[in-house]
Amino acid sequence: MDCLSAAKLLVESGLSVVVLEARDRVGGRTFTIRNKEVKYVDVGGAYVGPTQNRILRVAKELGVQTYKVYVEGNFLNHVKGKSSPFQGAFPPVWNPLAYLDFNNLWRTIDQMGEEIPVDAPWEAPHAAEWDKLSMKDFIHHVCWTSTVRRFATLFVNVNVTSEPHQVSLLWFLWYTKLCGGTVRMFSITNGGQERKFVGGSGQISEKIMDRLEGRVKLQRPVVSIDQSRDGVLVETLNREVHEGKYVICAIPPVLTTKIHCNPELPALRNQLIQRLPMGSVIKCMVYYKEAFWRKMGYSGSMFIEDEGVPVGVTMDDTKPDGSVPAIMGFILARQASDLTHLSTEERKKRICQLYAKVMGTDKALHPVHYEEKNWCEEQYSGGCYTAYFPPGIMTQYGRVIRKPVGRIYFAGTETATQWSGYMEGAVQAGERAAREILCAMGKISEEDIWMPEPESVDVPTLPITRTFWERNLPSVQGILRLLELSVFCTSAAALGLMAYKKGLLLRN
Amino acid sequence: MDCLSAAKLLVESGLSVVVLEARDRVGGRTFTIRNKEVKYVDVGGAYVGPTQNRILRVAKELGVQTYKVYVEGNFLNHVKGKSSPFQGAFPPVWNPLAYLDFNNLWRTIDQMGEEIPVDAPWEAPHAAEWDKLSMKDFIHHVCWTSTVRRFATLFVNVNVTSEPHQVSLLWFLWYTKLCGGTVRMFSITNGGQERKFVGGSGQISEKIMDRLEGRVKLQRPVVSIDQSRDGVLVETLNREVHEGKYVICAIPPVLTTKIHCNPELPALRNQLIQRLPMGSVIKCMVYYKEAFWRKMGYSGSMFIEDEGVPVGVTMDDTKPDGSVPAIMGFILARQASDLTHLSTEERKKRICQLYAKVMGTDKALHPVHYEEKNWCEEQYSGGCYTAYFPPGIMTQYGRVIRKPVGRIYFAGTETATQWSGYMEGAVQAGERAAREILCAMGKISEEDIWMPEPESVDVPTLPITRTFWERNLPSVQGILRLLELSVFCTSAAALGLMAYKKGLLLRN
Repeated sequence: MDCLSAAKLLVESGLSVVVLEARDRVGGRTFTIRNKEVKYVDVGGAYVGPTQNRILRVAKELGVQTYKVYVEGNFLNHVKGKSSPFQGAFPPVWNPLAYLDFNNLWRTIDQMGEEIPVDAPWEAPHAAEWDKLSMKDFIHHVCWTSTVRRFATLFVNVNVTSEPHQVSLLWFLWYTKLCGGTVRMFSITNGGQERKFVGGSGQISEKIMDRLEGRVKLQRPVVSIDQSRDGVLVETLNREVHEGKYVICAIPPVLTTKIHCNPELPALRNQLIQRLPMGSVIKCMVYYKEAFWRKMGYSGSMFIEDEGVPVGVTMDDTKPDGSVPAIMGFILARQASDLTHLSTEERKKRICQLYAKVMGTDKALHPVHYEEKNWCEEQYSGGCYTAYFPPGIMTQYGRVIRKPVGRIYFAGTETATQWSGYMEGAVQAGERAAREILCAMGKISEEDIWMPEPESVDVPTLPITRTFWERNLPSVQGILRLLELSVFCTSAAALGLMAYKKGLLLRN
Repeated sequence: MDCLSAAKLLVESGLSVVVLEARDRVGGRTFTIRNKEVKYVDVGGAYVGPTQNRILRVAKELGVQTYKVYVEGNFLNHVKGKSSPFQGAFPPVWNPLAYLDFNNLWRTIDQMGEEIPVDAPWEAPHAAEWDKLSMKDFIHHVCWTSTVRRFATLFVNVNVTSEPHQVSLLWFLWYTKLCGGTVRMFSITNGGQERKFVGGSGQISEKIMDRLEGRVKLQRPVVSIDQSRDGVLVETLNREVHEGKYVICAIPPVLTTKIHCNPELPALRNQLIQRLPMGSVIKCMVYYKEAFWRKMGYSGSMFIEDEGVPVGVTMDDTKPDGSVPAIMGFILARQASDLTHLSTEERKKRICQLYAKVMGTDKALHPVHYEEKNWCEEQYSGGCYTAYFPPGIMTQYGRVIRKPVGRIYFAGTETATQWSGYMEGAVQAGERAAREILCAMGKISEEDIWMPEPESVDVPTLPITRTFWERNLPSVQGILRLLELSVFCTSAAALGLMAYKKGLLLRN
């Protein structure tokens, strides 16, 4: 998508372009499957929401409309074998300590993000310190209740398809900030999962390909880039050689390893691309005869926190007209590795059993169809949704992520400074890389490389604010300190009193 | 080296073999440069020692002899701008708390290693727990003095060319165990750095290449492996296609990403190879007119622990006949990234200034020659010495590291179960992979795949033991607990006495 956004912009600017696509389809980590059972379904990137103005602009231009994900009725939160209905972005908690702990977690992540420059997280005042810690260290340090630690782990799993102990704190704070904070990132309504595209997100790449009129060459994995003479020679696996003035490399950083470079890449880039693994997820859609959950008063959205279950989060995936009832679920991080050896049939069975348990109905045991996509086995994605930074990589190597290498420029949602990891980030990165080339050719000035994007009129952004209490309630640690202080004062007073009495006694 | 060891064994077993080498030379991460200034020098893997019996056997068979690294005189330990002479594997400490702390660190690493199966570290009883921690977490938890924390950081930097916060505790314990423990791994005498090869380690690969009589094809980077029909088709960048019954992939795991596979790799392997980055090191040799350090009573071995210095560890690199006096130094981990942008001349200057400071002589400022190799910029190594496992990777993906994919078998020192990361591990892995193929062809039985190696007669192994005190001295934490206990007892006794006196007082 980033590659095609770049190509589209360059062609519109009058340049001559060829797009070399490794697969037999466009779209990369977006992929719309069509068949009679499902009509269409996004087995890859699908969700869009307010503040994702670039992808919304491109979609609108291409005539692709959005619809809102179904959120009526109750969400379900499943912990320790029990399901609790709720409404809103996060499951509510009744234990007052857990409530303070939750409130403090979201507040802390967002507040720490404030000091991180979106285009240079390695320059944050605490970059060195935070990059040496993992999200596991952070959760362990900040969260005081097991309820919140458990949910924080799911929060990492869901948002970046990896485990808290695998990812850098600095990177995760940066990533969350780029999505507009914890609430925007995690919400359906007014957040990153508010909408989907009618007809599927894959159409966007397909329609751009149509506009590019034969400039997109499928089944052309690139095996080498030669910059040893003037211009750039790009060779594909099927032995075509393409010559150009510039190249945009619009693939995940680790996949650039697949390209043999002459001359070799600079040391930092050569090592960076070994250090940004792709996340792990299997996207699973279970289809039913009817949307029985809606009748039960459930939205179809579930957070499932128990250990050993296949799916961590679900959403309703029924078509906007109410046809093809379905529930979408993600098999995330460690679970994607643990369940990869099972047959499709076995995964489907386990998922249905889980849904039956969480929603408390045997109806979930009788699907009429199943679709899944294991992104971990995709050679030309490496995984999904996006690359993650393990501890220590952002500060040691991050600064070269967008740095051109000769005439090679880098797109890919990993290089974005808003909604990195999302379709929005892909479009931002693709268009920015295209403008870098326009700038290098002297067609635009350097100030025009990074362009702000006006807000979508169709998908307006509602502000997200914290209430007075959310801003000012103490953390659990704060409460404990307060308790400590009051215990200390009480003890001191008691001791004083005792001493006074003792004095009296002795004086008597 | 692993590739050639495998080819040698297979040819000796009567098989027909072709070796496809990406570079214009053999040797991989070993590389012997020859010129008139240095005669010969190993700018890559160089050191061998007792228990590395396979590489010693291969070298002997090829007529390559070893010599001992110069260790006469004092080693130097440089901390906070001060140099202290010492002898032995580790710098001595005089502060009794630091002594206990050091003793406890080495003991703990080795004791924890005892429970880790060399061929399946993911099955260690504490694997899940230890793999979620980094070596930074471990150092923070186990070491109580800044002296020992600082040295432990250098210990990680030197042994695995990466930072403590980047590597998994489980992996580092396993890695150390495979080298025979902390002392064997880190020692010159009776350890991994005892010897070098007369004429350079590169000769070993070169001599095997000669024996293979034209079967080694240079400048043949592999771009694809096709197993979609019978047998295997391997295509190179220069458009040759080689057909075989089996393939041994004898490159670092991450570099297998460079190969386009048909069919795609299984999910776990596709993701494993994105998760094992290569370490970072620049190997630097400074040449002098005379070995002035020997005259000063120094061996040339230095541990340099200060922040912001270019080199962390050095050894004498003079030829065994005393000619071509030189000091070898490693620029390690974060320093390799920090100094990569400098010119060779500038790095040389900074290194000489450091040596002058550490040895306290201006003679170090006047080198007659300089050689360096920045392994971080090598496309076909990715880095040196070896791959590291970030937290969470060993337990989630490790079990597929040696698992064949169809007719592809995996060598590479990263797949070894003794001295992984060293030349010894490379030979073990190459020969094991060759025997896996012999087994698959029905030529040997499964029990003969893993072969023990008899001890070298020329490089005998002396045992490494811990003294009674080393085994039984308390840790700093133990001491603190003891102190706590005694403070508690003393206080209790004092309180009792006071109460008694008070009682007396009151009774009077």
